[in-house]
Amino acid sequence: MMKDIKIYDSTLRDGAQAQGISFSVEDKLKIVQSLDNLGISYIEVGNPSSNLKDIEFFKRVKEIELKNSRLVSFGSTRRSNMSVENDSNVQAILRAETSAVAIFGKSWDFHVKEVLKTTLDENLKMIYDTVKFFKDRGKEVIFDAELYFEGYRDNKAYALETLKAAYEAGADCICLCETTGYAFPDQIYEITLEAVQKFNTNIGIHCHNDSGMAVANSIMAVKAGAVQVQGTFNGIGERCGNANLSVIIPNLQLKLGYNCIPQENMKNLTTAARYISEVANITFDERSPYTGRCAFAHKAGMHADAVNKNPKTYEHVDPEVVGNERVFLMSEVAGRSAVLSMVKNIDPSITKDSPQTRIILEKLKEMEYEGYKYEGAESSFELLIRKILGKYQPHFELKEFKVIVNDPPVNSMNSSAIVKISVNNEEEITAAEGDGPVNALDKAARKALERFYPQIREVKLTDYKVRVLDSNMATAAKVRVLIESTDGKEVWTTIGVSTDIIEASWKALVDSIEYKLMKDN
Amino acid sequence: MMKDIKIYDSTLRDGAQAQGISFSVEDKLKIVQSLDNLGISYIEVGNPSSNLKDIEFFKRVKEIELKNSRLVSFGSTRRSNMSVENDSNVQAILRAETSAVAIFGKSWDFHVKEVLKTTLDENLKMIYDTVKFFKDRGKEVIFDAELYFEGYRDNKAYALETLKAAYEAGADCICLCETTGYAFPDQIYEITLEAVQKFNTNIGIHCHNDSGMAVANSIMAVKAGAVQVQGTFNGIGERCGNANLSVIIPNLQLKLGYNCIPQENMKNLTTAARYISEVANITFDERSPYTGRCAFAHKAGMHADAVNKNPKTYEHVDPEVVGNERVFLMSEVAGRSAVLSMVKNIDPSITKDSPQTRIILEKLKEMEYEGYKYEGAESSFELLIRKILGKYQPHFELKEFKVIVNDPPVNSMNSSAIVKISVNNEEEITAAEGDGPVNALDKAARKALERFYPQIREVKLTDYKVRVLDSNMATAAKVRVLIESTDGKEVWTTIGVSTDIIEASWKALVDSIEYKLMKDN
Repeated sequence: MMKDIKIYDSTLRDGAQAQGISFSVEDKLKIVQSLDNLGISYIEVGNPSSNLKDIEFFKRVKEIELKNSRLVSFGSTRRSNMSVENDSNVQAILRAETSAVAIFGKSWDFHVKEVLKTTLDENLKMIYDTVKFFKDRGKEVIFDAELYFEGYRDNKAYALETLKAAYEAGADCICLCETTGYAFPDQIYEITLEAVQKFNTNIGIHCHNDSGMAVANSIMAVKAGAVQVQGTFNGIGERCGNANLSVIIPNLQLKLGYNCIPQENMKNLTTAARYISEVANITFDERSPYTGRCAFAHKAGMHADAVNKNPKTYEHVDPEVVGNERVFLMSEVAGRSAVLSMVKNIDPSITKDSPQTRIILEKLKEMEYEGYKYEGAESSFELLIRKILGKYQPHFELKEFKVIVNDPPVNSMNSSAIVKISVNNEEEITAAEGDGPVNALDKAARKALERFYPQIREVKLTDYKVRVLDSNMATAAKVRVLIESTDGKEVWTTIGVSTDIIEASWKALVDSIEYKLMKDN
Repeated sequence: MMKDIKIYDSTLRDGAQAQGISFSVEDKLKIVQSLDNLGISYIEVGNPSSNLKDIEFFKRVKEIELKNSRLVSFGSTRRSNMSVENDSNVQAILRAETSAVAIFGKSWDFHVKEVLKTTLDENLKMIYDTVKFFKDRGKEVIFDAELYFEGYRDNKAYALETLKAAYEAGADCICLCETTGYAFPDQIYEITLEAVQKFNTNIGIHCHNDSGMAVANSIMAVKAGAVQVQGTFNGIGERCGNANLSVIIPNLQLKLGYNCIPQENMKNLTTAARYISEVANITFDERSPYTGRCAFAHKAGMHADAVNKNPKTYEHVDPEVVGNERVFLMSEVAGRSAVLSMVKNIDPSITKDSPQTRIILEKLKEMEYEGYKYEGAESSFELLIRKILGKYQPHFELKEFKVIVNDPPVNSMNSSAIVKISVNNEEEITAAEGDGPVNALDKAARKALERFYPQIREVKLTDYKVRVLDSNMATAAKVRVLIESTDGKEVWTTIGVSTDIIEASWKALVDSIEYKLMKDN
């Protein structure tokens, strides 16, 4: 019998504490959807506050129909010397209306005195009252014992008291947090074991990576009996990051026989990890265990030869199980099976042995070498496949564009663009001004095309992302532009790569427009 | 009494197996020097072969006078059914003339049969003969039991036999290698403990990071009695990398009281890790425990406030001990105290009640509203504070710029820029072509300024990031550009915000140049 482990994702809350992370409402909704698809048990959606962005997010996230996940609002215990009812933060959590809440309280006496500046006794009451408040209102309550391991080291009796307060108030799960990331696997094991034995409720674990051991520490806690593991995808989090769920999940499920996510979703792990990294707009670490492009990469020579004889010689798991691929370096191809499944969507008659499959894979290799990355830009990839399969008819042709940027600006708009296109040999030249060159170009292109295709008025570009590919080249480096568009019914993302950001943006714009015209036909 | 742990660096051998790594002879010599300076006990310099690059390196590395380190040549046991004397690889190791050698042999029966295609018995003889050969010639011999943990799992008796063969041949150290990176900390502990108890010689550990636990696994082996730890700086290595020595060293020395490197060198750890990454030409992971820029970065708000009260609240070690720095990130929720600590660096006389503090906070709020986010762009924030405090003297003034982008390109370069600046009322106008408008602008600006400030030639832009702020506005949305620059000594990041990507890039560029000129004064 496989034991269930509840995976608790904090990418949107603790992950948002990471340097360089700033999620938009759309980003957050995308991540929630992706985690639910993968089968994550809990999604911590953040600390509900009264700012407009949060209000919009909490309103919209409730509209998503979740298949697997339960949303969790997060917040602190009530303030000292104040009733729960009068505490605006506690009330904000209640108003968020999630069925589960995570309440964090201090387990380290040092923090109670130095940071909260209250008494040890009052802190216990703050924990008890806040957990009780939510239990009385029918919530599932997870108590996050912040700095538990640090507290245990300095004042074990008090740290245990804080757990007891949450336990007696009825917490459904007590999560032991290693907040500063200082501890070693054997310590985590012993201390977790004691909590598991003392309290007749679920014990969770939340580790940070300051000593480079967050994954190992989380797993040792599970071995000691913890049943909930908190962490983030790709380990995104403040300082050195949180425990990396994209490593913990396969470690627990593939090697130790625990149930974390539905087994049939394990093959989506690599895609999910990469997608979340893309949405968060951070560079994916290709050395990541299980999901990185290097994870099953073998340099030519002894190891590659052995792996060719039998992959088990140098691979700890089969890459396909987690949706990754074995790579013999020098071949850049990724995701053969993913490619095939997309090709089959366009033309079901094609199999992995069809000559077109080989041509598509070759083209993909070439495009990846150029800097294209179609994960998260499936619409451009679909266009590419259609072009190769001869199932694509261009709707227009660019003849020429010219963009001029002036500083100081002329008449407040600093950019202007001239675009010349042709549709069925009929030419149209037009110009537009804009806030910046890409905006001017976008406006001019639509203006020229609207005469032929009025439906492109429905298209709105909703996101625009740029990533520099070869940072050694700085401003002369290749850039990859991703544009997200919507016509109110569907959302699609397209890609362009060039050393010139205008050119790259143009390519992504053209794909966006072409995709719209194709799908409307 | 602190116990000594011998740190064994394999950056030049196992590290060279990593994707994208290719060391020149000069690179290798620099790394040897850097490791010796830090006080690493053993430096594995590679597998001596007969290629010219290796011959040159082994000749030159012998000329370095090492203060702390011993060089180790690395190679396999003799081939099957061949005498040691006739094995050219064994002879090449001997000719390398290092006083220590590392010999690897197979401890997994599966590999003996499938890869070596020899008998289990012959493999034991290969181990014995090769170790004995080098012992007879007065070498210090480390036996690397390749795939020991994998072998122990499948055929424990045989794995132990392989260690016994090396032990009986007189190996000075038997290093247990977890070559596929599959194991868990508790397994590593148990299996290492058994070897420590069985063999009256030094036991070493060599882990890979395929399960994200190489650091934890290495440390658990030390807890079981291993006295040699093999790994690489920054964890560079094939697939997911090797055990990261820049994390293991402080973990063992600062937290568990082992001696790894001279204590007075610990403060050079961050510099060494970054230097090796630079020489290896790989992007340094800023989230690295101890040595990364994020390792002691606190996002404004609760955590930063607490750290300001007492750093111990959220820091597992003092950053200065490892030569790193505490950073307060200027996020949207920028707390007063985080800002204050940066202001105090510039002008220690300012307190939280000074009128300037209020003005700075107001300005910060205004800039954040505009879309600036100084987290990760502390250099721009420093310039902003200096401007407010009147501690800033601009080095140049922009009069005008004009950028033109053509598609199709003219003479292969598609962008050209004209820049007019003035320095002390002296004007300079110049132009440049580039791959894309930002590149053209960057080139033109430097060209114009070099006449006045030749030192800006040292500045290299190393990263360029763009983030769209209000995705509802799509291409007319505000964009935030972050530019990372270096002059080889320091790295700094600057920011620019505008609806126009060119304008935003220009602002970040100007700040980058101004920061360089300011810090050089």
